[in-house]
Amino acid sequence: MALVGAGPGDPELWTRRAVRLLQQADLVLYDALVDEQALRQLTSAQLTFVGKRAGQRCSKQDAIHDLMIRAAQEGKRVVRFQGGDPFLLGRGGEEALALAEAGVPFEVVPGVTSAVAAPALAGIPVTHRGTSSALLVVSGHAPEALDSTLEAVRPHAATIVVLMGLARRRVVVEQLCRIGWSPDTPAAIVCAASTRDAWTWTGPLRDLADARPPAGLAGVLVVGDVVDLRAAVAAASEVRQEPKVGEVTYGSN
Amino acid sequence: MALVGAGPGDPELWTRRAVRLLQQADLVLYDALVDEQALRQLTSAQLTFVGKRAGQRCSKQDAIHDLMIRAAQEGKRVVRFQGGDPFLLGRGGEEALALAEAGVPFEVVPGVTSAVAAPALAGIPVTHRGTSSALLVVSGHAPEALDSTLEAVRPHAATIVVLMGLARRRVVVEQLCRIGWSPDTPAAIVCAASTRDAWTWTGPLRDLADARPPAGLAGVLVVGDVVDLRAAVAAASEVRQEPKVGEVTYGSN
Repeated sequence: MALVGAGPGDPELWTRRAVRLLQQADLVLYDALVDEQALRQLTSAQLTFVGKRAGQRCSKQDAIHDLMIRAAQEGKRVVRFQGGDPFLLGRGGEEALALAEAGVPFEVVPGVTSAVAAPALAGIPVTHRGTSSALLVVSGHAPEALDSTLEAVRPHAATIVVLMGLARRRVVVEQLCRIGWSPDTPAAIVCAASTRDAWTWTGPLRDLADARPPAGLAGVLVVGDVVDLRAAVAAASEVRQEPKVGEVTYGSN
Repeated sequence: MALVGAGPGDPELWTRRAVRLLQQADLVLYDALVDEQALRQLTSAQLTFVGKRAGQRCSKQDAIHDLMIRAAQEGKRVVRFQGGDPFLLGRGGEEALALAEAGVPFEVVPGVTSAVAAPALAGIPVTHRGTSSALLVVSGHAPEALDSTLEAVRPHAATIVVLMGLARRRVVVEQLCRIGWSPDTPAAIVCAASTRDAWTWTGPLRDLADARPPAGLAGVLVVGDVVDLRAAVAAASEVRQEPKVGEVTYGSN
């Protein structure tokens, strides 16, 4: 049994250990950020979707635990393959506890977290010497926790990344401005990073709520002066890199 | 030219894209967290060490830029292979800007960041529903920025991870306690995660400065209630997993 991070989307960002475990697996439980076709090319395991898709409800977390535990106890090699890193605002902790309580041994395989990778693939380093030396990551899925965390951090003290933040972006802007962030603070939305649907918006914080990302994509919000480096990289180089990981093109859009 | 994350240490945590680029490379510039032997098995590229080792000074950042740019301009396929993720408290941003200014096209390949992976491999999810829903990552290498960032965050509002924090641990403890963190807050030191030297200490924040990690290892500090989950996982399961990624054994030490 393994709890494995799948990264932001592109199967090229899967780790070697993830690939090995998938190849040997009998059962793979995966969610919406995982490329199903790439999975099928790699493994003959049974593939069970346990994520959330537009118009569908996600599997209840208890049901995922039951599936994992039952299959592992039957002797199956099970991979729980979760987008991003399961242990940063994912379900890794809950699943680890459930397995431990059931006495099921398991391995942890970290993945590439979208909190850092999505901005980086859009040309934004979340920290940068002389600009920002700290990163705060929060989830947009827990409104109360989001509000109280943002209020607990002095304006401009860290780059802020809101994972799964699209739906809450208006509240985030209002709250940050209310507690003292400048409405001119550079901000970004990065959707579907590392995939062919990748889409990036940058602009001042005050306009972030009015950006119109394509419907149906997952996205992260980035707030902080580091966002300006995207333009610097693009303007200084006027280089459009070959699309390799995903379809990233610097200076586009 | 590619700026590539190498993850916390174990070559099994290198991404597929990293492996492909290394295989095709003419020149690899790597640093101290990268497994040199694994690198040699994978590629016939020229390997140039540009990191810091005990008793040695690290290559100056400008010299790394010059090396990269010159080799790329000579038509060499260059991989800058940096431990962790280069864009979270690494040199990714500086290197991207230098390449852009020189007009050298480059690809960004994110890696597994030690900020999340090191705690996870020690059994600590940096966030966990009901315990912590935010993560603050800071560097121990910039004392002033570290001080001002820690002071800017209300006590217990987020899990704190200090990358490269070992040398500053006494100051971190004093400062956190002074601004209102409970000295009983669960804390951890995780050294050399994912490698055979992996070493973990957990205890109350007040004792963190007195922990004695083995000399010569890099390590992260973790402060927050999530650290207690490590014991919960181990105590509930009494399972010692097979060492696979690194030499992690839950419940040991």
